[in-house]
Amino acid sequence: MTLPDYSQGAAWQRGSYVPIAQASVPLTDWGFLRSDAAYDVVTVWDGAFFRLDAHLERFLRSCSRFRLDPGRSPEEIVAILEQCVRLAGLRSAYVEMLCTRGQPPWGSRDPRQAANQFYAFAVPYVWIANEEQRRRGLDVRISGVQRIPPASVDPTAKNYHWNDMTMGLLEALDAGADTVLLTDAQGNVVEGPGFNVFAVRAGRLVTPREGVLEGITRRTVMEIAQSQGIAVEARALPADELRGADEAFLSTSGGGVLPVTRIDGETVGSGEVGAMTQRLAETYWAWHRDPRYATPVRY
Amino acid sequence: MTLPDYSQGAAWQRGSYVPIAQASVPLTDWGFLRSDAAYDVVTVWDGAFFRLDAHLERFLRSCSRFRLDPGRSPEEIVAILEQCVRLAGLRSAYVEMLCTRGQPPWGSRDPRQAANQFYAFAVPYVWIANEEQRRRGLDVRISGVQRIPPASVDPTAKNYHWNDMTMGLLEALDAGADTVLLTDAQGNVVEGPGFNVFAVRAGRLVTPREGVLEGITRRTVMEIAQSQGIAVEARALPADELRGADEAFLSTSGGGVLPVTRIDGETVGSGEVGAMTQRLAETYWAWHRDPRYATPVRY
Ligand SMILES: Cc1ncc(COP(=O)(O)O)c(C=O)c1O
Ligand SMILES: Cc1ncc(COP(=O)(O)O)c(C=O)c1O
Repeated sequence: MTLPDYSQGAAWQRGSYVPIAQASVPLTDWGFLRSDAAYDVVTVWDGAFFRLDAHLERFLRSCSRFRLDPGRSPEEIVAILEQCVRLAGLRSAYVEMLCTRGQPPWGSRDPRQAANQFYAFAVPYVWIANEEQRRRGLDVRISGVQRIPPASVDPTAKNYHWNDMTMGLLEALDAGADTVLLTDAQGNVVEGPGFNVFAVRAGRLVTPREGVLEGITRRTVMEIAQSQGIAVEARALPADELRGADEAFLSTSGGGVLPVTRIDGETVGSGEVGAMTQRLAETYWAWHRDPRYATPVRY
Repeated sequence: MTLPDYSQGAAWQRGSYVPIAQASVPLTDWGFLRSDAAYDVVTVWDGAFFRLDAHLERFLRSCSRFRLDPGRSPEEIVAILEQCVRLAGLRSAYVEMLCTRGQPPWGSRDPRQAANQFYAFAVPYVWIANEEQRRRGLDVRISGVQRIPPASVDPTAKNYHWNDMTMGLLEALDAGADTVLLTDAQGNVVEGPGFNVFAVRAGRLVTPREGVLEGITRRTVMEIAQSQGIAVEARALPADELRGADEAFLSTSGGGVLPVTRIDGETVGSGEVGAMTQRLAETYWAWHRDPRYATPVRY
C-alpha cells in the first residue's frame, strides 16, 4: 500500500480526507447541476489562519441565506480545515469550505428534501496577481458585462455564480489587461473575479457599498484605515470616478491589497503604485502577525 | 468481478462509462467552483430521441457562447448519448450533455488555459409535474426574485446559474404552490426552474421573447401552433396579463405542455385545464412519433 500523496493539497469529502486530485462532487449534486452551494475561503499565512472567525461566520451566514445546512458546528469545521492544512503540510494556504445542496430523492424537485453536503480543501496559497503585477500595479479593464444584481442573487452570500466574471475576464485578457472589474446597471463599478475595489481620492478611501461581497479583506482595509485616521466612504463608485482617482487598489484574500495602476489602458494617478496603497498593503501583512487575527495551525 | 449496475442511469466521464451513482466532477473543476459550464438536455421517449438535432445544435451554441469546447463532433456526442441510454436500458430517459471549463495549470487564473471537459448521462425520464399536477393543472407562484438578467448572463446559452430559481422555488413551495415563475426588472414573467411559459388570450398564444432560454419545447409549441393556424406572439408578458389569461401553460422537456390552473392562489380562466392547452399537449406527444423529430435509439 502506497501512502496517499497530499503534497498538492488535501480535501475532506464524504467523511474522509483525500489528496486534492482525487476530490470530487457527484455529477448529480445540485451544487453542480444548479450551482446550488455556498462557500468561503480563508487563508493560512506563515503557519496561521488569518481572521478565521470572520470567514467562518460569513460562511455560516451564506449557508443560512441559501437555506443550506453544513451540518457541522464551527468547531468541527475548524478541525476539518486544520487537518486539511496539516495533511498538505502547507505554511501558506488557500483553504476553502463549502456546502452543496446534495440531491433530493429520485423524482423530487424539492430542494428542501435534499441532504446537504459539506466539503473542504487546502491547496497552496493563491495569488490573484503575480509578483510582477504586484510590483508594477495591475492593468484592469472595466467591463460592459453587468455583475449579477442583488435582486437576482444575493452577492453578500458567497456563491459560485461567476459566468459574468468569467465572460468579463476573457474579454479583458483578450484585450491584454490583467483582470476585470464589473459594473452595475447604473455604470458603477462593483467587484471583480475574487476581489473588491477601492479608490483613493484626496486622502480618503471610497469602496462600493451595494451589489458586492462584503470581503473580509475589504473589512480589514476599512479597519486599518480607521486605526490610522483615514476616512472611508462605502457608497456607489461611478466608473469615471475610479478612472479619475489618485490611486486605486483591489482587496482580496488572494493577495491582500493589490495596486491598480492602469484602467482601460489609461494610467491611474501617477501611473505608479500609490503611497496610500503601499502603506495599507504593508499594514495588511503586518496584521497577519497580530494575535487578534492569527490562529496558529497545530501542525 | 461484479458487473457494473447501470439500472439507475449511466454516465460518460473522463473517457469511460460508469453507473450514474459513481459519476463525478473534480472538486477543483471551474465547472463547479465557478459554475463555468454549458449543458443541454434531450429526452428519449418510447425508444427514440426527440428533436436530437435541435438539442445538439443548441448545446454547441451554448458552448461557443461561453468559449467552451467539448472537443467532440456532433456524431461523437450522439454516440456517447446513445451508449448511455443503451447501458441504462431506458425506453424513456432524461439525457444530459455538458461541458465544463476544467482547470488551468496551477497558479493560472486564465480560463483560456484550461482543458475543457465533456460529460454526459442518461437517467429515467424526469417530470417537472407529477401525474396529479398534470391532471388538475399546476398552482404557480410568481416570485419577487428577478431572473438573472441577460446583461449579466446570456439566458439563451443553457447554464447552471439557478440560485434565483432555487430561492424563488423554495418561497413557492413554502407557500404551498407547486412551482415558481420569475420576473424581470419590469415585472414581466420570464421563465421558471426548467420551463418557459405561455398565456392563451382570445385564441392566441403569448410567450416571453427576451430574458429566457429559447426552449426546444417552446419552439415545438410555436411550430404546432403554426401548423394549426394559431397565432403566436413572442413579446414581453406582464405578470398581470398572465394572471388574466384564458389559459396558461409551461413548456419543458420535462413533461411537454404542462397546464397552469392557479397563479398565486387565484384561478386562471375557468380554473380547469384549458382546451387549447389540452390540444397542444396531445399534439406535442403525437409529434414524438413523427420521423421528422424521432431518432430511434439502437438498443
Ligand atoms: C466576488 C468576490 N468579491 C470579493 C471578494 C473578496 O473577498 P475576501 O476579501 O473575503 O477574499 C471575493 C473573494 O473571493 C469574491 O469572490
Ligand atoms: C431556464 C430554463 N428555461 C426553459 C427551459 C425549457 O427548455 P426546453 O423546452 O428545451 O426543455 C429549461 C429547460 O431545462 C430551462 O432550464
